[in-house]
Amino acid sequence: MTVHLVGCGPGDAELLTVRAARLIATADVVVHDRLVGPGVLALARPGAERIDVGKAPGASRSQELINALLVELGRGGGEVVRLKGGDPFVFGRGGEEAMALAAAGVPFTVVPGITSAVAVPAAAGVPVTHRGVAASFTVVTGNRAPGQPPVDWEALARVGGTIVVLMGVAERAAIAERLLGGGLDPTTPVCAVMAGTSTEQHVVRTTLAGLGAADVTNPATIVIGAVAALDLGTWSPTASPAAATLATPTRP
Amino acid sequence: MTVHLVGCGPGDAELLTVRAARLIATADVVVHDRLVGPGVLALARPGAERIDVGKAPGASRSQELINALLVELGRGGGEVVRLKGGDPFVFGRGGEEAMALAAAGVPFTVVPGITSAVAVPAAAGVPVTHRGVAASFTVVTGNRAPGQPPVDWEALARVGGTIVVLMGVAERAAIAERLLGGGLDPTTPVCAVMAGTSTEQHVVRTTLAGLGAADVTNPATIVIGAVAALDLGTWSPTASPAAATLATPTRP
Repeated sequence: MTVHLVGCGPGDAELLTVRAARLIATADVVVHDRLVGPGVLALARPGAERIDVGKAPGASRSQELINALLVELGRGGGEVVRLKGGDPFVFGRGGEEAMALAAAGVPFTVVPGITSAVAVPAAAGVPVTHRGVAASFTVVTGNRAPGQPPVDWEALARVGGTIVVLMGVAERAAIAERLLGGGLDPTTPVCAVMAGTSTEQHVVRTTLAGLGAADVTNPATIVIGAVAALDLGTWSPTASPAAATLATPTRP
Repeated sequence: MTVHLVGCGPGDAELLTVRAARLIATADVVVHDRLVGPGVLALARPGAERIDVGKAPGASRSQELINALLVELGRGGGEVVRLKGGDPFVFGRGGEEAMALAAAGVPFTVVPGITSAVAVPAAAGVPVTHRGVAASFTVVTGNRAPGQPPVDWEALARVGGTIVVLMGVAERAAIAERLLGGGLDPTTPVCAVMAGTSTEQHVVRTTLAGLGAADVTNPATIVIGAVAALDLGTWSPTASPAAATLATPTRP
């Protein structure tokens, strides 16, 4: 009857919202992509249908097919949960899915999730803002997809705040070059967090001058700015079964 | 024994994370500010001590006193939850509290929360990024506190992405002026969301030229950019008691 576009955060099952956990536990159909952690999927009912629409970057279904699938499932009568890594509206293409559902007259809701742009740096001890250090942060994709509007990296360098780059591993040398061209200091601290909040989390600390050659691999969140020098604790990953127990609603 | 710096999102109790709900429900002491919703506080144990450190802007305790209080409580032996509206590291001064705890040798953890910067626009149907429309978003405070580094609004106008202004109601005319000076079109869409995700949520849609004179009141999240013209659904607020039931852990 309703399609819920649900953000499920950076992967740790305890970083689901209470609403997300409730919707997943009661859904008839769960549609998910490859960025959704196994601890999250474990919350679905045994009888719920699970549809994986994005096993690997090359093999993932086209957005048009996913939109059509959601419309069809929404018309089918059950409660449909469309799980997305992070937040549906932060490079999650949730807007496109919402538009397709609205155009087809299928009721939908949007449930914000913890965005990796903020939580993954935090999991490595880096606050994206800090009093006296950063009065703004910009979240930007390094992924230059066709039709994506251009980013003025030189202007971004002059804004004076933290820069958080998602999906920027491949382009990191070019991005660093343009930020340097915009006037950022080569010694500007950089913190790259790989597999953030998971048991495989690891962190590379470097400078803007060193970013291009640094050993950074996907999936990574790259923080550029003075805050990237801070080191305020490390996230303790949740054991999935415990999270599942905790998240199970006590009523339907 | 441990102080947990916990983000609790924009106010709706179902936008707590599962970890936040678990920590609140088992805490010995809950320290909170005025931005934390009553549905969230209702999750604390009846026997838990509740300390309100920020009833109103003028009457709130100084950050130095709050830091000292957290250190003292952390040394006291119980589990302490420091609740913060939104995310602790998005203008939440969580970094300062983490530093004070680290300096005093008090163990602490940081639990990211749903930031209003993303979730409040979403609650009014506005995605902060949208394919082909916005490849970045900048979250910036309009609050010009002493010691805060300057924001180059003219440079920000040239970046080409979405701008989300928090705590910018009082300065909105000056901010609009500077963004116009940086080259943003006067017809750039603006969406201001007041009391986002609550039952009192209301939305004002205007343009950058109209922002200064628009009827915008605190607390508001102001979105500036092409995405602000989108209207993809509205958040359904959670009734607090139901959320409390759902969030109660089934084991300690």
